Amino acid sequence: MKYTIIAVIAFLFLSSCGDSMKSTSVEKDVFDEAQIKSSMIKALEWQEAHPIFAVHPTDWTNGAYYTGVARAHKTTGDMMYMAALKNQAVANDWQPFERLYHADDIAISYSYLYVAMNEKRRDFADLEPTKNFLDTHLYEDNNWKAGTNKSKEDKTILWWWCDALFMAPPVINLYVKHAKQPEYLDVMHKYYMETYNRLYDQEEQLFARDMRFVWKGNDDDRKEPNGKKVFWSRGNGWVIGGLALLLEDMPKDYEHRAFYVNLYKEMANRILEIQPEDGLWRTSLLDPESNDHGEVSGSGFYTFALAWGINNGYLDKKHTPAVKKAWKGIAACQHEDGRVGWVQNIGAFPEPASKDSYQNFGTGAFLLAGSEILKLQ
Amino acid sequence: MKYTIIAVIAFLFLSSCGDSMKSTSVEKDVFDEAQIKSSMIKALEWQEAHPIFAVHPTDWTNGAYYTGVARAHKTTGDMMYMAALKNQAVANDWQPFERLYHADDIAISYSYLYVAMNEKRRDFADLEPTKNFLDTHLYEDNNWKAGTNKSKEDKTILWWWCDALFMAPPVINLYVKHAKQPEYLDVMHKYYMETYNRLYDQEEQLFARDMRFVWKGNDDDRKEPNGKKVFWSRGNGWVIGGLALLLEDMPKDYEHRAFYVNLYKEMANRILEIQPEDGLWRTSLLDPESNDHGEVSGSGFYTFALAWGINNGYLDKKHTPAVKKAWKGIAACQHEDGRVGWVQNIGAFPEPASKDSYQNFGTGAFLLAGSEILKLQ
Amino acid sequence: MKYTIIAVIAFLFLSSCGDSMKSTSVEKDVFDEAQIKSSMIKALEWQEAHPIFAVHPTDWTNGAYYTGVARAHKTTGDMMYMAALKNQAVANDWQPFERLYHADDIAISYSYLYVAMNEKRRDFADLEPTKNFLDTHLYEDNNWKAGTNKSKEDKTILWWWCDALFMAPPVINLYVKHAKQPEYLDVMHKYYMETYNRLYDQEEQLFARDMRFVWKGNDDDRKEPNGKKVFWSRGNGWVIGGLALLLEDMPKDYEHRAFYVNLYKEMANRILEIQPEDGLWRTSLLDPESNDHGEVSGSGFYTFALAWGINNGYLDKKHTPAVKKAWKGIAACQHEDGRVGWVQNIGAFPEPASKDSYQNFGTGAFLLAGSEILKLQ
Repeated sequence: MKYTIIAVIAFLFLSSCGDSMKSTSVEKDVFDEAQIKSSMIKALEWQEAHPIFAVHPTDWTNGAYYTGVARAHKTTGDMMYMAALKNQAVANDWQPFERLYHADDIAISYSYLYVAMNEKRRDFADLEPTKNFLDTHLYEDNNWKAGTNKSKEDKTILWWWCDALFMAPPVINLYVKHAKQPEYLDVMHKYYMETYNRLYDQEEQLFARDMRFVWKGNDDDRKEPNGKKVFWSRGNGWVIGGLALLLEDMPKDYEHRAFYVNLYKEMANRILEIQPEDGLWRTSLLDPESNDHGEVSGSGFYTFALAWGINNGYLDKKHTPAVKKAWKGIAACQHEDGRVGWVQNIGAFPEPASKDSYQNFGTGAFLLAGSEILKLQ
Repeated sequence: MKYTIIAVIAFLFLSSCGDSMKSTSVEKDVFDEAQIKSSMIKALEWQEAHPIFAVHPTDWTNGAYYTGVARAHKTTGDMMYMAALKNQAVANDWQPFERLYHADDIAISYSYLYVAMNEKRRDFADLEPTKNFLDTHLYEDNNWKAGTNKSKEDKTILWWWCDALFMAPPVINLYVKHAKQPEYLDVMHKYYMETYNRLYDQEEQLFARDMRFVWKGNDDDRKEPNGKKVFWSRGNGWVIGGLALLLEDMPKDYEHRAFYVNLYKEMANRILEIQPEDGLWRTSLLDPESNDHGEVSGSGFYTFALAWGINNGYLDKKHTPAVKKAWKGIAACQHEDGRVGWVQNIGAFPEPASKDSYQNFGTGAFLLAGSEILKLQ
Repeated sequence: MKYTIIAVIAFLFLSSCGDSMKSTSVEKDVFDEAQIKSSMIKALEWQEAHPIFAVHPTDWTNGAYYTGVARAHKTTGDMMYMAALKNQAVANDWQPFERLYHADDIAISYSYLYVAMNEKRRDFADLEPTKNFLDTHLYEDNNWKAGTNKSKEDKTILWWWCDALFMAPPVINLYVKHAKQPEYLDVMHKYYMETYNRLYDQEEQLFARDMRFVWKGNDDDRKEPNGKKVFWSRGNGWVIGGLALLLEDMPKDYEHRAFYVNLYKEMANRILEIQPEDGLWRTSLLDPESNDHGEVSGSGFYTFALAWGINNGYLDKKHTPAVKKAWKGIAACQHEDGRVGWVQNIGAFPEPASKDSYQNFGTGAFLLAGSEILKLQ
C-alpha cells in the first residue's frame, strides 16, 4: 500500500486553486512526470465529458482546446488524445466554422492538420475545406480588409483583435509545412504586421486587445482603476502562445523568422517581469489588484510559451523556477475530477474568474502548458 | 480536514432509495444549498454521459429532460446546464421531432426557447422549426383533430392523453412570451379544455391517462386490484408539472389564467392529500399497495409543482414539510455516481420501477424538483 | 458498513493486469455475478466516454464493440446496453460503413439487427442500408472476387483475411434469421469455404491471418523468432468468436451446420491446448515468448467462444476451470475506472500490448466474454 490512510483521505479532498498555497502534509508532486501526465489526461477526460462552445463545435473555443489536445499528443504519444482528435474531426466532417473572413473560424483546423500529419492512415483526413477557407481568407477581399466596417473596435484590418494571432497564423504556418506552399507565409506575414503595427505597445511590450484599448491621448482613453493601460492577460496569451506554435513549425530559413523570434523574446521577458508572486497572472496585467486572483487561460498560454522557449533555446534556463511556479499554480486550479477552474469566461477584456469557471479553451491552455512542462527537466 | 475517516468511508458507500429510511450516523443534509446543487450537477453529468431516448434525441424524453436542465439553469445560473442545453440544441439543429400532429414531438422546443431567451449571443438560436411546428400543430387539420382515428385510446382530440399537457402547452406559452404572439394562447386553451373536459375526474381531482381509463359504468371499466380507478402517478405529474411551467410564464392578465390557477390548486391539494407516509408517491395513486415503492418521475414532477406553488404564493406554506419530505425521498433515490433511480420506464399506466431503473425524463423531474427546492427556504 | 477501512483503501488502489497474480488480502470475487455485471457496465461506461475508431464510427472497430454490447444486453437485459446500442444506431442513421465490397464495413450491422429484433418499438430500426450492403457484397462482382487484385496479401477472394469471418458471416446469419431469407446462408457458406480452404492450417488447426503467413515451402516464409509459423491470437479470436455467434443463430437443420460445429470444436480444443499457464493467450500463439504477456482482445474472444461452447453443449464441462482462469486474467486487466487494458492496437499480426493500451473492440471482446461467463455456473 503506497499511502497511509490519512494520505488517501487527504488526497480525496485536496482542494483547488484558491487554497493552493496552503501547505498540506501530503502533497502531490506537480512536477512528477506521471503526475503531470495523469492530470492532463484527467483534464481531457473531463472536458470531453463536458462539451461546451460559443456557437458551434467547430468554433474558436474548440479550436484552442484541440490545439492543446494535439500538442499533448505530440509530447506524450498517448492514444487517448489522438482518439479525441479524430473523433471530433470526423464528427465535424473536417469543416472549419462558417465565416471565411473571420480568423476565429479557422482555429479548429490546427487539429485537423495535426491529425493529417500524424495519423498513419492515408486518405483519412480531408483538408480541402481548410484549404478553401485559407484561400478565401487570405486572398479574397472582405469588409474588414477593405476598411469599410464602422464599429468602435475599428475593424479595418483583417486581424483587428490580438486573439486572431493565435487563431489563424499557426494554422497557416502548419498548412505551409504540410502542403509545402510557402507563399501562404508571406501573406500571413503581411497581415500579422498590420496587427502588430496597430496593437503592439512598444513601450509596454504587450498587445492591446483591439483599438478600443489603444491610447490616443484623449480623456476617454480606457484606463484601469489604477490609471494604467488595459492589457488583457488572455489576449496576450493568445499572441505569445501563437508565437510558440509559429516558431516551432516555421522554416528555419524563412526570411521574416527573426521578427517572430524577437517579438517572442520581448514579450516573454516582459511577461516574466510582471509575473505575480504566486506565479499566476491576473486578468489585467498591469492592474493585478482589480481582480486579484490567478487566471488560468492567460497563465496557461504563458506557461506554455515560456516553457517552450526554454525547451527550444529561445529563453534563458534561469527562468525555469518562474515557469515551474506558474505550473504549480495552474495545477492547483484543477479540481479533483479533472475540471480546470479559474478560467475567465468568453470575453474581450479583463473580467474575474472563479474556482468553478471553466471553458474548453482554458483546458486547452492547461494541456499546452503541461505538454511543455513535461519536457522542462 | 472536514470529515473524519469514518465519515468519508460512510460517504463512499451511502446507499440509495431502498435503504433511504435506514438511519446512518453520518447523513448528508439534503436541504443544504450546496448539497442540492451538487446532487443536481451530478444528475446532469450522469445523464449527459448516458444518453437515452425512445426513438430519437429530439423526442419527448429529452424534451422533458432538457426542460429540467433549463429550469435548473434558471435557478442556479450554473454554466454547465447552459453548455448542455446549447450542445444538444446545436446537435439537433434546433429541430423538433418529426410528427407535426403529435404533442410529444414539440416538447424539446422548451429548451430551444429557453436558450434563445437566455443566451446572450444574438442570432444563435434558430426558432423557425419550432414556429413551423406550432403553426401546423395548432392550425392545420389532422386525423386526431378530425376525430376519424379509430383506436381503443379514442384518439379523437388533439391532446387525447394527459401527458400531452406537459409536452405542448408550456412550449406554446413560452413561445407566446418570446415572440409576443398572444393569439397562440387562445388556440392552446381550446385544446387544453378538450383534454380537461374529457380526462379530468372532477370527483377525484386527478387526470385519467386516456379514455381507456375513464369509467363508463361498464363491467369492463379498468380497475386496480383494490377496485379503485387507475390514476397514473407520472401521468398526473405531467399535468401538474406542466401547470407550474404554464403559470410562471403566462401573462398575468390572460383571460383564462384563473382556470389554470384553480386547476393547479385543486390538483396540488389532492396530490398532497394522498401523499404516502414516506413522502414518495406510488405509480398508481389510488392503489399504492400494488407497486408499493416510491417512484421518482411522478414524485419529481409533484415536488417541483408543489414547491413552485409555495414559492409563488399559490400554495400555503404549511405544506412545506410535506414537500421537503418528498425531496428527501427523491434525493435518496440518487445513486452515488449521480444516476437517478427508481424511475418507471416508458409507459402509459402504473408499472413498477427499481433501484437501477432510470430515464432521462426522470432526471428531468429530479432537476425540476431541485430547482424549486433550492428556493424553498 | 460492509467493509473495513483497510478493505476500502485496498479497493481504491487495486492494481491491474500486470500485477494480477500478486495476491491481495482483500480480493474481488471475479466470479460473483454482481461483480461480473458491475465490471461489464464499467467497461461500457468507460468505452462510451472514450469513443475511438479507425476511420469512422461505423467501422469494424465499433462493429466488434457493439456486437459485445448487444450480447451483454442479451444476457443481462440491462437497459444501459440497449440505450448505448440505440444511441449509436440513430447517430449513425443505421448505415454500415461505405465500402460495399469490404467485410469490415458490415460488422456494425450486427448491432442494428440486434436492436431491430429486441427493441419493442416497431418501425424504429431501418435495415434497408444493411440489406443493400449485403446484396451488393454477396451478389455483385468486385475486384477481390474477380481475383484481379495484385497485392502481397493476395486479395483474390472476397474474404481474404481471417478477421473477415467475424465481420460478415454473423451479420449475414442474423439477417437470415431476422428476414427469413435462407438463400443468403448458401452464399455465405461458399465464401466461408474459400477462406477456410486457403487460410486454415489443418495441421495446426489454426488460421493464418492472410496469405502472407501461409507457408509455401520457400526460404522467405514468415517465421516467428522460434521458427514456428505466425498464428495471430486476435486473428484466430475473430474466427472462433464468429463461429460461436454463427452457431447460436444458425438454423439447427442448415445443411452445412456440421461443418461449422466441427470447425468450432477443432479450434476450441486447439486453443485450450495452447493456453498459457496464467490463462491469457499471447499475441503470437505458437511463439508466446516473443511478447510474453497476456493480450485481452484475443483472450476475450477465446473466453467468449469457449464459455459459449460449454454453455451450449459443444465443449466438455471439464474445461470450465481453464475458461475461468482466462476470465480471471482478463478481469485483472481492467483498470479501476473501467478501461480494459492490455489490448493489442489495430494491426494484422502479433504485436505487443501494454497496461494502458485499449481499443473499443477489446472492450467488445471483454463484454462478449463476460456475457458467457455469467452463464457458466
